[in-house]
Amino acid sequence: MIRVGVIGASGLAGGELIRLITQHPELELTYLGGSSSAGKRPAQLHPGLRLDLGLTVEPVGDEIGDDLAGRCDAVFLATPAGVSAELAQRLADRVPCVIDLSGAFRIRSADLHDRWYPKVRRRAELADRFVYGVPELIGDQLPDASLISLPGCYATAITLGLAPLVLELGLELRTVVVDGKSGSSGGGLQLRTADLHPLRNGAIAPYAPLGHRHAAEVGDFFQRGKPGRIGSLTMSAYGVSHVRGLLASCYVFTDGEVDARTLQRTYLRFYKGRRFVRVRRHDETLIPVPDPQAVLGSNYCDVTVLHDPDDGRIVVLSALDNMVKGAAGQAVQALNLRFSLPEETGLTMQPVMPA
Amino acid sequence: MIRVGVIGASGLAGGELIRLITQHPELELTYLGGSSSAGKRPAQLHPGLRLDLGLTVEPVGDEIGDDLAGRCDAVFLATPAGVSAELAQRLADRVPCVIDLSGAFRIRSADLHDRWYPKVRRRAELADRFVYGVPELIGDQLPDASLISLPGCYATAITLGLAPLVLELGLELRTVVVDGKSGSSGGGLQLRTADLHPLRNGAIAPYAPLGHRHAAEVGDFFQRGKPGRIGSLTMSAYGVSHVRGLLASCYVFTDGEVDARTLQRTYLRFYKGRRFVRVRRHDETLIPVPDPQAVLGSNYCDVTVLHDPDDGRIVVLSALDNMVKGAAGQAVQALNLRFSLPEETGLTMQPVMPA
Amino acid sequence: MIRVGVIGASGLAGGELIRLITQHPELELTYLGGSSSAGKRPAQLHPGLRLDLGLTVEPVGDEIGDDLAGRCDAVFLATPAGVSAELAQRLADRVPCVIDLSGAFRIRSADLHDRWYPKVRRRAELADRFVYGVPELIGDQLPDASLISLPGCYATAITLGLAPLVLELGLELRTVVVDGKSGSSGGGLQLRTADLHPLRNGAIAPYAPLGHRHAAEVGDFFQRGKPGRIGSLTMSAYGVSHVRGLLASCYVFTDGEVDARTLQRTYLRFYKGRRFVRVRRHDETLIPVPDPQAVLGSNYCDVTVLHDPDDGRIVVLSALDNMVKGAAGQAVQALNLRFSLPEETGLTMQPVMPA
Amino acid sequence: MIRVGVIGASGLAGGELIRLITQHPELELTYLGGSSSAGKRPAQLHPGLRLDLGLTVEPVGDEIGDDLAGRCDAVFLATPAGVSAELAQRLADRVPCVIDLSGAFRIRSADLHDRWYPKVRRRAELADRFVYGVPELIGDQLPDASLISLPGCYATAITLGLAPLVLELGLELRTVVVDGKSGSSGGGLQLRTADLHPLRNGAIAPYAPLGHRHAAEVGDFFQRGKPGRIGSLTMSAYGVSHVRGLLASCYVFTDGEVDARTLQRTYLRFYKGRRFVRVRRHDETLIPVPDPQAVLGSNYCDVTVLHDPDDGRIVVLSALDNMVKGAAGQAVQALNLRFSLPEETGLTMQPVMPA
Repeated sequence: MIRVGVIGASGLAGGELIRLITQHPELELTYLGGSSSAGKRPAQLHPGLRLDLGLTVEPVGDEIGDDLAGRCDAVFLATPAGVSAELAQRLADRVPCVIDLSGAFRIRSADLHDRWYPKVRRRAELADRFVYGVPELIGDQLPDASLISLPGCYATAITLGLAPLVLELGLELRTVVVDGKSGSSGGGLQLRTADLHPLRNGAIAPYAPLGHRHAAEVGDFFQRGKPGRIGSLTMSAYGVSHVRGLLASCYVFTDGEVDARTLQRTYLRFYKGRRFVRVRRHDETLIPVPDPQAVLGSNYCDVTVLHDPDDGRIVVLSALDNMVKGAAGQAVQALNLRFSLPEETGLTMQPVMPA
Repeated sequence: MIRVGVIGASGLAGGELIRLITQHPELELTYLGGSSSAGKRPAQLHPGLRLDLGLTVEPVGDEIGDDLAGRCDAVFLATPAGVSAELAQRLADRVPCVIDLSGAFRIRSADLHDRWYPKVRRRAELADRFVYGVPELIGDQLPDASLISLPGCYATAITLGLAPLVLELGLELRTVVVDGKSGSSGGGLQLRTADLHPLRNGAIAPYAPLGHRHAAEVGDFFQRGKPGRIGSLTMSAYGVSHVRGLLASCYVFTDGEVDARTLQRTYLRFYKGRRFVRVRRHDETLIPVPDPQAVLGSNYCDVTVLHDPDDGRIVVLSALDNMVKGAAGQAVQALNLRFSLPEETGLTMQPVMPA
Repeated sequence: MIRVGVIGASGLAGGELIRLITQHPELELTYLGGSSSAGKRPAQLHPGLRLDLGLTVEPVGDEIGDDLAGRCDAVFLATPAGVSAELAQRLADRVPCVIDLSGAFRIRSADLHDRWYPKVRRRAELADRFVYGVPELIGDQLPDASLISLPGCYATAITLGLAPLVLELGLELRTVVVDGKSGSSGGGLQLRTADLHPLRNGAIAPYAPLGHRHAAEVGDFFQRGKPGRIGSLTMSAYGVSHVRGLLASCYVFTDGEVDARTLQRTYLRFYKGRRFVRVRRHDETLIPVPDPQAVLGSNYCDVTVLHDPDDGRIVVLSALDNMVKGAAGQAVQALNLRFSLPEETGLTMQPVMPA
Repeated sequence: MIRVGVIGASGLAGGELIRLITQHPELELTYLGGSSSAGKRPAQLHPGLRLDLGLTVEPVGDEIGDDLAGRCDAVFLATPAGVSAELAQRLADRVPCVIDLSGAFRIRSADLHDRWYPKVRRRAELADRFVYGVPELIGDQLPDASLISLPGCYATAITLGLAPLVLELGLELRTVVVDGKSGSSGGGLQLRTADLHPLRNGAIAPYAPLGHRHAAEVGDFFQRGKPGRIGSLTMSAYGVSHVRGLLASCYVFTDGEVDARTLQRTYLRFYKGRRFVRVRRHDETLIPVPDPQAVLGSNYCDVTVLHDPDDGRIVVLSALDNMVKGAAGQAVQALNLRFSLPEETGLTMQPVMPA
């Protein structure tokens, strides 16, 4: 058994990690850390969790790390970026593997990092040691990685959506307009009036109309990738009236020559054998897809690519559960690869739909 | 024009009062009072309100009342019970009419009051001056009333549901089991984790499984009424996954002789001419009624009475918009009667459905 | 009183028209027509409507028109486009004013019409007699118009969103990418499995990912307008998890020089005095705006314009209630202007929020 | 591997069975049967299911059974009661185990059956061969059972809620008033206008105000049980605004002597070691429990018992996922017991919350 710990036990990502760990045949949860939640049992913090988990949340202090060395083979950081930055520094050489779910180490470009995470001081040396990326695209970097930074939920969806265009077809994407729609779980459980049920239910909330740091992540990633290129990538993000799941719509304008059939074939080929990415036709089932409700609770990312013959526009839609493939599930997937387990170990749960 | 003020401008009831006042042909909004919201304009506090209302919220200080005397013919208190209790004392003889939407003065019995409002000191003398009740049932007490206490949202629904049985048929209701289901707006906009959208959406939250103070109100009211009587009245209340509107289900066991036809006729007769109470057959329209979505935004209370021939059980269902007939609309209705306007003045808006 | 009739009484737009007519001080509902709903009373078809409306739905037969001549000063067609096309032909010279809410007569260009409404035979002569457009932009064409075609819900939002750029600033809009998000009421009450609650709730349904006929309408309209121009306008439309209201996001790329301040001023000036269009700053209230929940039940269209200094992109967001400003409310607004009533007569109801 | 088939592949229960079977380590799905869905692949019918299931739905004909004998060790009937009645007759002695999820064989009393299932002809001989009940209560009857009838979703919740009172404490329950609240998935995917999203969202639909056949099931079951007794058990059922999960509230009046502490202890003792029934305190976690959102997607039934010291009323609340513990999950649980597998095999997925 691989012994794992979770810091940030009270947040939504922390709770989802606990859920997945307790379903995983090769993981043993040996440590829970938190601050405000110290002393609580998991099911007090997350009403759905098993009642019989023996652990309670331990307070995270300055000396953390020394004691974790002997207790955990891997530690997940489900903490805010500022906290993750400090914890990663502390834990880096004390536990074999640190997997950070925050944005602290996602962006490589120092300028971009400082712009989108102005309050999170960049630790250049540490940052350079982190492996970053969607497991499907950087899987070979994960075995034996000691520091892993996971993409944001939107970044995962957009990257998986655009990768075949950029990395396989090598297209020059002149303009990419991203419109993101997500449920309220994306905002976590912080107390904000606008997130109370009466004001959030029925909303279409344009909370980030001019940009989103997950888009910066995507640009930064493809910047390093080859052989295609993205000119301008802009994003606007909206909260809509459900809880879990997001859809990223990428409207792509390219000067390259493509057609619907080539696109479909390319996507199928690119993701062949990757069980968590499902390339789907828009009209293949009872409802139009991709739709996040069709991946709820699972680690799938459903991707659909469409081509508008009139104006050459490519429309790429990707849907995922922001708490699973967009956070805790992808974290477990990365851990599986890190520890040489089959990628899907403990992640075979199928979507709960309708829900 | 009748000049009105609203204290507690930032709450949901306050916002709804402003909405209704700005739609009312005979009312002029001359004053807004608040504490944390002082200095704000109404549309900053309530995103839907007209942007061109000239007022800003004034801080409510100890000297309040002296200045309001010349500015308001009536003042609505949309404040917590403790605050209302103090404000009512202060305003009682300074403005012609005070209409309190809180629970401060609803319960007459001192014991019951102290049990259900332990933190709201009962001012016996002041309390005795208040007129309390659903306008349909106590309309004749309202003209020229200077102090009016409005029933709670559930109390309104339950009272209107049971009144024909008690007051018209004079039944002895041995046991009444009330099951209340309401949307999240009933809880206001206080910051509580359990009321954040991710935790409240999709919920069936048994928040008051053993009792509710609105039920105490109902018992207290009928206690004074005649000629029927209620033996035991218990209530459990649940939050369900929508925002506005509630349904009160009363399961009534009586030793009296009734049948479905008598019940239906009695209800129709009892509410004849009362335009805000609609006695409806369960299957008369596209959806089963009463359903709060069919009264949304309006001042209606829809009531359905059913009789189970097997065991004699009477089922009374009443649905209303907790922010309108359960709060601000009923407040305006009472004010209309107080100032000798037709009851429905400014309240003719029809339900917004589907929504 | 102006005597009005509604054909298509059983649909959502029909029901909403009845709601608004019964709230309107100058309108008298004298006729209801339908096919499957013939013989029914309004409240049987629409659970929220007043129970005491004296009318029942009359079957619409071939001879319609002759009898309506003496009964209605205006007739609203809330029928599918194919039915509207035939009814308009029949009623055109028999009743003083016909207001069509369908798409039958919206698109002027014959080619575009045939592409987007292939099953609705274009009657060129009749089509040319129709006045089309958002009342705010074509108000001077409405007095005495005998045939009025109302824009689609999305077309209304997009047109109001782009009009200041095109008509006032005279910009050349190189590329406009429209992303539309709407509630389930946009799809009406037809029986489709994908629209059942279990499959539609929690959905982000990409139902029209490559185009929408409302976008064709917009292009067609601005084509005729002056002095600016729109190069490419593409649209994708999504159903999200609420019932009423839509948000249109327009991502605009232009070579023209603009800045945030100029845009804001232009929008404010352009809509000055138009009470149904509210130009709002994104962060001016409790929730990000525009959000359709802040206009629910009202005839408002809230518009926000933003400018991304990085890449010059203009983001225009417009929110409206698809059943009011996007359909029945706009229809009444047009009728008001047609019959020389103040534009807002009977449309002063304020948004019901939260709901 | 146990080879299983599912008849009724297109319904919600059928889809959920497929989901659970594909997650189960000891089951192999070897057959799918249906009528309207014949020829379709599972993911065409249920958008969330794995895309790589090799099966297609086979038409169910008169000769069914002969061919299934060699292909299936067990067959689930996820068909309407009338269809199940016929299929059970046909399959009874042809396949080793038939598990019926419908109401065809739930009620033993012939009178009661005919009253609540008037269109489902009772086959007395066949009916008597069926084992019926919640696995937690009749587990010893399941090993080697060849015909198994599963309780309805509400019946499961109510039975588990009342069992400790009746079977353990042996109380005489004079009056039990059940108020049931469920999501829209309880109604399946039949095309009914009232179940379209615009009319079902935001609803509190009193769809069965005077009785529910699941309550008849419960009475029939306890009638046979010992040693306690239920006098009158009435039920009213409501559809509320979410998709998956139900809460049954039982308001129990008894002449027996009980107190809160005894009740809590009894429930804990009674369900000790039954991993799918979680006895929870009302205030033990972040939200009031039981709440169906805390069991979503899992096979748990959460139960809370409360005692009102004022009037002696006992309030029992039970929450479950109607598609899992209320249908497909309980079916798999029964199959596990039938085939001597550990009860929880393939059912260890934890609740997906928030969702």
